[in-house]
Amino acid sequence: MAAATMRMAELSGTSGVSVASIKLYLREGLLPAGRHTSPNQALYDDRHLQRLTLIRALREVAGLSLASIRAIVDSLDNPETELFDTLSTMQSAIISVPEGRGEHDRREEAQQLVDAVVAERGWVGASPENPSRALVEATVARILAVGADPALSVPLLDAYARAAEVVARADLAGLRDIAENDRVIELAVIWTVLGDSLLSGLRGMAHEVVSRQEFVAPPKAVE
Amino acid sequence: MAAATMRMAELSGTSGVSVASIKLYLREGLLPAGRHTSPNQALYDDRHLQRLTLIRALREVAGLSLASIRAIVDSLDNPETELFDTLSTMQSAIISVPEGRGEHDRREEAQQLVDAVVAERGWVGASPENPSRALVEATVARILAVGADPALSVPLLDAYARAAEVVARADLAGLRDIAENDRVIELAVIWTVLGDSLLSGLRGMAHEVVSRQEFVAPPKAVE
Repeated sequence: MAAATMRMAELSGTSGVSVASIKLYLREGLLPAGRHTSPNQALYDDRHLQRLTLIRALREVAGLSLASIRAIVDSLDNPETELFDTLSTMQSAIISVPEGRGEHDRREEAQQLVDAVVAERGWVGASPENPSRALVEATVARILAVGADPALSVPLLDAYARAAEVVARADLAGLRDIAENDRVIELAVIWTVLGDSLLSGLRGMAHEVVSRQEFVAPPKAVE
Repeated sequence: MAAATMRMAELSGTSGVSVASIKLYLREGLLPAGRHTSPNQALYDDRHLQRLTLIRALREVAGLSLASIRAIVDSLDNPETELFDTLSTMQSAIISVPEGRGEHDRREEAQQLVDAVVAERGWVGASPENPSRALVEATVARILAVGADPALSVPLLDAYARAAEVVARADLAGLRDIAENDRVIELAVIWTVLGDSLLSGLRGMAHEVVSRQEFVAPPKAVE
């Protein structure tokens, strides 16, 4: 399939990205140069459009800086880099671990709990440097520090981890058949960010449904 | 069991809440008055300690305003109000639905998808006014608006909803045997907020584990 070519104005119209932003991305090297037809005019194709759509997701959905976006597209364009590593780079750029406050002394205990869950789930290959692991440890330490530990147990954490794995498998299944690496990363970014929000909302809905069963007294029988 | 009594200074030391904050909560009616032993001195008991621990969770973990905290403790102290309704009040105070941007025209489509998932899950009694439902709809509309819809399907949403239900049941099981309503709400607040963060981190860890299996090329066989 021949790639359609277009001028800057059409690239802007189709992608929904302003000409000023496209020029910025060209200057910053986020977007590869077009094929020049004269010193002031160049032609762009579908790969530029796909890259712009990816950059837009990284900026607007994930709120990343140009420097973080640069690291991701450099990784994508490096033929030596596996797609898996680009996914890791993207994940590291997106995930922020809240500053610990008061939970410092519970950190070791939290690490042991997370180790127990990883072993229970058989999560071989879970890297200790994964920022998501740091987020889990910080959160468990905070739960311990604020005194909610009676509710915290390996079985409860394992229920969370099992649910997380079900969702992660469903997420990845949606990416398996996509041929273009730019599009894989674009969808992975959108789902990493918005999937959390989806899960949070659905968990809130499930809380209502389940607690209605458990916490509402049955209506009194009329004598 | 007789409730232990204590003076203001001890209540502050045991709860970790400053005397100034305790006085503010007394003035605002968040904390019931102590039993006065002289015009300038009062005694407090375990119920004051429990209430302060709850207020602390509502302020520090959930970041709620004094007005929102007031609504929750008023609901707790009203003998006509079911614990379920106090849980709903708490949930409404905590959940924020991001402002729609560009996703307005996908809202109806999003509602239909959410309806389909609710029916599929058999979530009878899921209220249309639940702020979590609004969060799910807004998120689905945003996923559609940013062009990630090829990955979005009722089976994928249903995988999310099933996982959310597993987690919600585990959450509620931890609250079932707690006798004091203040403590139920305190733990529910902490887990509503920190449970999302836990699930987000575990999902990120699961992404790594599952994508390592799917996206890393097996090492080339040595001839």
